[in-house]
Amino acid sequence: MTAIGFIGLGVMGGPMAANLVKAGFEVTGYNRSPAKVRRLVEAGGRGAESAAAAAEGADVVITMLPDSPDVEAVLLGDGGDGVLDRLAPGTIVVDMSTIRPDVARSLAEAGASRGVRVLDAPVSGGEQGAVDATLSIMVGGEASTFESARPVLDALGRTVVHVGPPGAGQTVKAANQLIVGGTLQLVAEALVFLDAHGVDRSRAVEVLAGGLAGSAVLDRKAPAMLERDFKPGFRVDLHHKDLGIVTAAAREAGVAIPLGALAATLMASLRAQGHGDLDHGALLLQVEQLSGRSPGE
Amino acid sequence: MTAIGFIGLGVMGGPMAANLVKAGFEVTGYNRSPAKVRRLVEAGGRGAESAAAAAEGADVVITMLPDSPDVEAVLLGDGGDGVLDRLAPGTIVVDMSTIRPDVARSLAEAGASRGVRVLDAPVSGGEQGAVDATLSIMVGGEASTFESARPVLDALGRTVVHVGPPGAGQTVKAANQLIVGGTLQLVAEALVFLDAHGVDRSRAVEVLAGGLAGSAVLDRKAPAMLERDFKPGFRVDLHHKDLGIVTAAAREAGVAIPLGALAATLMASLRAQGHGDLDHGALLLQVEQLSGRSPGE
Amino acid sequence: MTAIGFIGLGVMGGPMAANLVKAGFEVTGYNRSPAKVRRLVEAGGRGAESAAAAAEGADVVITMLPDSPDVEAVLLGDGGDGVLDRLAPGTIVVDMSTIRPDVARSLAEAGASRGVRVLDAPVSGGEQGAVDATLSIMVGGEASTFESARPVLDALGRTVVHVGPPGAGQTVKAANQLIVGGTLQLVAEALVFLDAHGVDRSRAVEVLAGGLAGSAVLDRKAPAMLERDFKPGFRVDLHHKDLGIVTAAAREAGVAIPLGALAATLMASLRAQGHGDLDHGALLLQVEQLSGRSPGE
Amino acid sequence: MTAIGFIGLGVMGGPMAANLVKAGFEVTGYNRSPAKVRRLVEAGGRGAESAAAAAEGADVVITMLPDSPDVEAVLLGDGGDGVLDRLAPGTIVVDMSTIRPDVARSLAEAGASRGVRVLDAPVSGGEQGAVDATLSIMVGGEASTFESARPVLDALGRTVVHVGPPGAGQTVKAANQLIVGGTLQLVAEALVFLDAHGVDRSRAVEVLAGGLAGSAVLDRKAPAMLERDFKPGFRVDLHHKDLGIVTAAAREAGVAIPLGALAATLMASLRAQGHGDLDHGALLLQVEQLSGRSPGE
Repeated sequence: MTAIGFIGLGVMGGPMAANLVKAGFEVTGYNRSPAKVRRLVEAGGRGAESAAAAAEGADVVITMLPDSPDVEAVLLGDGGDGVLDRLAPGTIVVDMSTIRPDVARSLAEAGASRGVRVLDAPVSGGEQGAVDATLSIMVGGEASTFESARPVLDALGRTVVHVGPPGAGQTVKAANQLIVGGTLQLVAEALVFLDAHGVDRSRAVEVLAGGLAGSAVLDRKAPAMLERDFKPGFRVDLHHKDLGIVTAAAREAGVAIPLGALAATLMASLRAQGHGDLDHGALLLQVEQLSGRSPGE
Repeated sequence: MTAIGFIGLGVMGGPMAANLVKAGFEVTGYNRSPAKVRRLVEAGGRGAESAAAAAEGADVVITMLPDSPDVEAVLLGDGGDGVLDRLAPGTIVVDMSTIRPDVARSLAEAGASRGVRVLDAPVSGGEQGAVDATLSIMVGGEASTFESARPVLDALGRTVVHVGPPGAGQTVKAANQLIVGGTLQLVAEALVFLDAHGVDRSRAVEVLAGGLAGSAVLDRKAPAMLERDFKPGFRVDLHHKDLGIVTAAAREAGVAIPLGALAATLMASLRAQGHGDLDHGALLLQVEQLSGRSPGE
Repeated sequence: MTAIGFIGLGVMGGPMAANLVKAGFEVTGYNRSPAKVRRLVEAGGRGAESAAAAAEGADVVITMLPDSPDVEAVLLGDGGDGVLDRLAPGTIVVDMSTIRPDVARSLAEAGASRGVRVLDAPVSGGEQGAVDATLSIMVGGEASTFESARPVLDALGRTVVHVGPPGAGQTVKAANQLIVGGTLQLVAEALVFLDAHGVDRSRAVEVLAGGLAGSAVLDRKAPAMLERDFKPGFRVDLHHKDLGIVTAAAREAGVAIPLGALAATLMASLRAQGHGDLDHGALLLQVEQLSGRSPGE
Repeated sequence: MTAIGFIGLGVMGGPMAANLVKAGFEVTGYNRSPAKVRRLVEAGGRGAESAAAAAEGADVVITMLPDSPDVEAVLLGDGGDGVLDRLAPGTIVVDMSTIRPDVARSLAEAGASRGVRVLDAPVSGGEQGAVDATLSIMVGGEASTFESARPVLDALGRTVVHVGPPGAGQTVKAANQLIVGGTLQLVAEALVFLDAHGVDRSRAVEVLAGGLAGSAVLDRKAPAMLERDFKPGFRVDLHHKDLGIVTAAAREAGVAIPLGALAATLMASLRAQGHGDLDHGALLLQVEQLSGRSPGE
């Protein structure tokens, strides 16, 4: 049986680790907050008191952390005390966080120099996808490592695809966040447009969803937006971070993303106005504000 | 049996009229080009030599024409010679063209003053949706008229929704075109972004489609975009016209659609560069140009 | 001595008519509000009780009105009762309002068919420029008409330029409003940027004004913006109207104005939020709002 | 007599150093290319074989280099071999390059810890301003250091202003580049707009320059743009670098700069299309391309 060390048991990582337990893997988890470790134990996993302890002896180590520096801190540490240095050669590390593609490439190299096989495997699908094990998982790294890790990934998601060499998973995730952020803004604009013209918005969403305007955003996000329910879900702060990755990577590659850049500006503005903790569907609030419309008007 | 007069047998109207024949309606069609009328006759319908003749004696008259002035010319004519003036009171007119919401409202009023019941019922779903009778149909007008026309509409589409009073169908169609135009641009930006970073784009599209970035645009349009197949489909010229409707209606209502407005600028630019006859997926060409990338690079 | 009929004695027209009196012209003015006519009389002009009466017997008729329909109403009237119909052949009409270039062209044609010579001659420079007779005047129409009207125009402005055929004056004015609206937004963004970084903004404006960033907007508008004095000046409502002319004319000509279009969206948003009566420098308020900053923070 | 060490004798630094010689300062200059050092010697200065040698014994050291890493390399070096380490306490270092505000702050701290007084003093006004000693100079740092360095700066520019603490000069320069980049794009859009409508553009520029649309960009850049002379001047590559500083600093501070961000996207696109070596006025080329217009059409 494959032993898995799981580092980062938050909104996403918690249910993902639980799903691995359900699928029969032996999972040892770590999180800074002991309450989250306890929840994994209740679900049938084991708890560890440090990232290093969770990784100890694992066949596969999974990290699910907020941002690039967090992943670097855990895997590389501060000179010799990182997880990578403690793993047996051949161990697979799957970083499922959303981080910068160039950092993902560096981590893969750092792993390779120690005989550790590193995949970048960020996900899309949100908390619900994590709970239901229906995530989309976009994987960068060696094809053979991908094949070895596949049974683990299949227990977490429904669409699991190897998209290219190290960093490619994060690049695809960046593209994902570009599309999602832009689509949310478009849907927000459409909803305010419809409201201003006195159209029944629930019915409009129903018919829009059936045609070429249809999208996962319209299906999964528009209903909550119409009910002004902005409990996350995926926080504006995190999407803002991700759009920073997107715009930097586009700038570096000389790719013009005019809509993506404007969407990033609008997400940053939403955050600057103190809405960083709301669900990213709160872009609706900003379109309403820019249109001089109060909620419920 | 309901008698239907069908005016406008183009890329969309042709297969729609044929579907009505298949569904058992008695369809008399008219188009300026006789070849298109002949095709309807081959499919089991009847041909007429003028719009007026097609409408003569019909229970339901359907118009499927390029733009607001075309619909006005047919229905209102030049002082007394329009179709509306020749219909028996109680006849239903269903305009399925994409036109300005304010024109749709005027036509509904013009009909009402003559005892004719007018619906605006634009569609989404493209040529394929017209052929397969899987269109989304967004209907504005009186609820009772909608119920009367429903059997006809059900023979043309899969998602048929009454969204509000006269003009509401066109307003929802405008919102549809806002979302579709913006999403196409976002997908184009993402595809160039992925290419510039050396990612396998078919696999990326597969995994993107499975998550929150998933959309009908990604499913139905991205594959042709990747193959650089820009045969329409839906022409840039028409989408440009529609985005003109969207931006004017947003301006009039004081609704801020920053992403929609930028997408409209980019669509207009694509057209100004001579690509009006291509499918709107050709937004990809412009992102490539702006990124200094040649096809196949 | 040249007799001038002056129709429209508002914020701009009032001081302009007074300057013509000062320059020795015989000026008969009309405005809907009698108080404004009285002010002209006090300045040494004559008052008229209607636009037609003001124009009666004039060598040169000047119109200075809010928008295209106002100018059409005065000059064309409702079938035969417009000013154009009452003028002697050879009379010069100078429309100094800011209106649509295509309307300006129509009016020139309407004049020509009656033997009346029409110029479009919109201005830039604001209330201060009207008072000081330092306006920039951009003139479209026949070169010979321009030469005939020149002494009158020279009494109103400092930079008086014939820029092309009928409508060209309005086209240049549209370009003017595009640049001014965009520059105001850029200056607003820069001011909030400087404030957020703790820089002394008065000094920053001083040094910015001395380099390539220098502009009339920075010289004349930034000081009031820094003091949060948004008393017009030039109202958001009017600039919004003008940007509508710009974006429509750009769309019609297939010209891409991405920055202009975004500036138009932001101006429209400012207006939708109830700030239509403020000076257009109030774009600063919106940048502060989008940046989550309160005044005086 | 004040002894000045001048490091970086390029397009800007060369004429600036020569102006200091003319003003009676004793100037020792260094540049990687010996040809540029020779030119300073011909102008009456001295040459040095290294940055360190140029700085040796100077009262004031000036750096005028392309980017942040260049300035860090010269001043900090690689562990102990930087210029800062070789200067006598009390020496003034004036970095006149355009670099990141946070790097400017770090350099000021690095200087302070060694008893060296560092100013950031970037300039605006271009090559012509450097030659004519009419630059705008925006200075960050201690007020007393500014006063000490003032005679040197007055020999280089016409508008020399102390705008705040360390880094403030660079912040103001960033704001300068935001305004200049945006204004260039607006002027480019206006010029294509005027051309498409058949207006005489030289005359239009003349009258625009006289009103609220007037700017240094219109005065100094539009004539070359109209003649399609894109010989730098200030290269697209450098303005692109500067807009990267602007957008990063705005993002960090939570300031919304929608027009600035779009201008940055368009500048990046111009560069991606291979025009990095042209003058930034080449934004005109891109507006023409986006409008489907060829030069001379």
